[in-house]
Amino acid sequence: MPDPFRVGLLGHGTVGSAFRRLLEQRAEAVAGVAGRRPEISGVLTRSQGSFEDILARSDLVVELIGGVEPARQYVLGAMRAGRHVVTANKQLLSQHGDELWEAAVENEVQLRFEAAVAGVVPIVRVLAETLAGSYVERLHGIVNGTTNYVLSEMAGTGASYAEAVAHAQELGYAEADPTEDVTGLDAAAKMAILARLAFDAAVDLSDVRYEGIEHITVDDLEYARELGLQLKLIGTAERIDGGLSVRVHPAFLYGGHPLASVNGPFNAVTVESPDITEITMSGPGAGGPQTASAVLGDVVSAMIPPPSLPHRLERIPIVSDVVSAFYLHLEVADRPGVLAQVAELLGLQDVSVKSVVQKGLGDEARLVMVLHPVLESRFFAAVRLIGRLDAIRSAPRSIRVIEEEFV
Amino acid sequence: MPDPFRVGLLGHGTVGSAFRRLLEQRAEAVAGVAGRRPEISGVLTRSQGSFEDILARSDLVVELIGGVEPARQYVLGAMRAGRHVVTANKQLLSQHGDELWEAAVENEVQLRFEAAVAGVVPIVRVLAETLAGSYVERLHGIVNGTTNYVLSEMAGTGASYAEAVAHAQELGYAEADPTEDVTGLDAAAKMAILARLAFDAAVDLSDVRYEGIEHITVDDLEYARELGLQLKLIGTAERIDGGLSVRVHPAFLYGGHPLASVNGPFNAVTVESPDITEITMSGPGAGGPQTASAVLGDVVSAMIPPPSLPHRLERIPIVSDVVSAFYLHLEVADRPGVLAQVAELLGLQDVSVKSVVQKGLGDEARLVMVLHPVLESRFFAAVRLIGRLDAIRSAPRSIRVIEEEFV
Repeated sequence: MPDPFRVGLLGHGTVGSAFRRLLEQRAEAVAGVAGRRPEISGVLTRSQGSFEDILARSDLVVELIGGVEPARQYVLGAMRAGRHVVTANKQLLSQHGDELWEAAVENEVQLRFEAAVAGVVPIVRVLAETLAGSYVERLHGIVNGTTNYVLSEMAGTGASYAEAVAHAQELGYAEADPTEDVTGLDAAAKMAILARLAFDAAVDLSDVRYEGIEHITVDDLEYARELGLQLKLIGTAERIDGGLSVRVHPAFLYGGHPLASVNGPFNAVTVESPDITEITMSGPGAGGPQTASAVLGDVVSAMIPPPSLPHRLERIPIVSDVVSAFYLHLEVADRPGVLAQVAELLGLQDVSVKSVVQKGLGDEARLVMVLHPVLESRFFAAVRLIGRLDAIRSAPRSIRVIEEEFV
Repeated sequence: MPDPFRVGLLGHGTVGSAFRRLLEQRAEAVAGVAGRRPEISGVLTRSQGSFEDILARSDLVVELIGGVEPARQYVLGAMRAGRHVVTANKQLLSQHGDELWEAAVENEVQLRFEAAVAGVVPIVRVLAETLAGSYVERLHGIVNGTTNYVLSEMAGTGASYAEAVAHAQELGYAEADPTEDVTGLDAAAKMAILARLAFDAAVDLSDVRYEGIEHITVDDLEYARELGLQLKLIGTAERIDGGLSVRVHPAFLYGGHPLASVNGPFNAVTVESPDITEITMSGPGAGGPQTASAVLGDVVSAMIPPPSLPHRLERIPIVSDVVSAFYLHLEVADRPGVLAQVAELLGLQDVSVKSVVQKGLGDEARLVMVLHPVLESRFFAAVRLIGRLDAIRSAPRSIRVIEEEFV
């Protein structure tokens, strides 16, 4: 059994404790992938633990304290001691990027920070790795879930800005003091980090121009809808004539833009490059569990050299009969009792009807139904019997229905 | 100067030649990121080159021949000789996965294949790396651009299946013989690869149940729309009671599903996990340049150990004045000539009007305009002057408009 991979944890708030729980829960699975079992070798909180002690017994340090100091000293200290660092700290990365990058290069350690931008949306890895060889021209991002929730709520319900912010606070999507979010400062920090990765350039928060959503009125949203426009707080980073522009401001999007349909407390980023046209990634904005998952992904990556070495696989049985909802389309004789016969055959197989539309067509009728989820074998058994009914005029047609919604 | 990183290229068709061009064009930039300059050390085509010669002078082999043989022998041969392999070959990966994984593990080499699934959408890397420590419960994917184009066309224009396929062929979105796409076989191969990654399980093409879109009628799409449903060819891979189900079939989605709005020759994948809720990634399906870009991303990743080591950055100037389109909202006195005054001040700064809505409100009126893109400094100069007009009743309100559309 190889030695465990020792992870020193700095910070034990919402994200820190969620990360610790997730790591313990997933330790066996990670060992299967990475060859070593990760374990927490020490936790530093405000009231207990010593950074030097934790550093001495860690292979990698996870920084989840937040804010610039003392996080900066710890992160630099860990890298100078030859430890890989995983952090979710957007303030630190956006304000001291040059110093941190320099320390990582000089000490030949990894500095990973997927969790600092856009929660579980893996934009950091995609820019740093997938697109490492590509020429990125422009990014557009919705990188603050609070403001996206507020704008979606205003557009969807006609709530005022103040009402929508209050509602976001009730639901836990906005802090008691939402200033960093609504002024665009949080989004600006994230865009500085993304611009650094996208363009391999030394971009800091001070290079980012930003505006917030405090002055947006419902009026603006209503007029815009008449013009086919959706309002979002958009971060943009783009190349212009050999230079860069990085900025955050409210902006209207036309319906066809991939970010126009991103609603609620979600994040999404579109990357444009002549090599790839564009890709869009979206997912929930940062909550404790999502951030913890992004941190764990970074820890696992730092454990695996080289990262995509295939590893040995499990054998898991293939299931042949699954549960699905169905759409069912029948051409039937238009006479009394046909729907009852069909419903009975469905009922015998425990298939229940969610909605039905019947349309007469001369002496024929069309029955179109959506059925609740059921084992496919049962559904097809019912359809075979239905197909043999006298009243059926052509072979029944069925198509599966996926019922999940996320937004 | 370190030695160049030698890439042996097997296959020189559309993708192979696009990859070679892209690699030559991006060689300097890659050297900046990876520390070594990549170069093509040999090209194997049907008519020229010897595999053994190319292998002997390569650090990594890119396989873009396609099909099972002789690609399989070459890929196994390269790995057994200790070379990393990058391939876009979905047939090979989905039918001989166990053998390939085994060879990679035993020879401690990388086997990368981002380009085999969903074009530039980085789903392979996200499953293999970002989510390596996560428990993935389910994937839904639109992994075949041809069929997604055909279904979008049928739904959007009322074209029949045959007409939509013919149109896809004209536009280059479908092959002369579209059988592999329309039967679901191509999507099934991709889902086998994704399931293997998502569940760390030995899934092969023979484990995937699939149906195509050949029997879909416009009728089905029309009824479905009345029920709020969109039809897509959906690949699903999910855990069920300790087993797996991997399948491809036409399926209806409700409007809120993240895949429901993916139209045209696009690919998209949604990954669900209790750790992350879900993430969705979308982008153009595989074309030559996109596939070449995904292959280059894999080559770069194989060159960089460890992959996210920050590297030294360029200094690129920040541009302060950029071009934007704007929405402009004015409250004005409702009297003749106001619109003309506003338009004149805009015109003096070269700001031109794209659309305008004027609404009377008693003795006031509201002018809402969308303006064509212009340097922001010019727009704001015009707005300052407009704000000083006698007829203006409250401060002008402006919001940027992003005009790009992708679909």
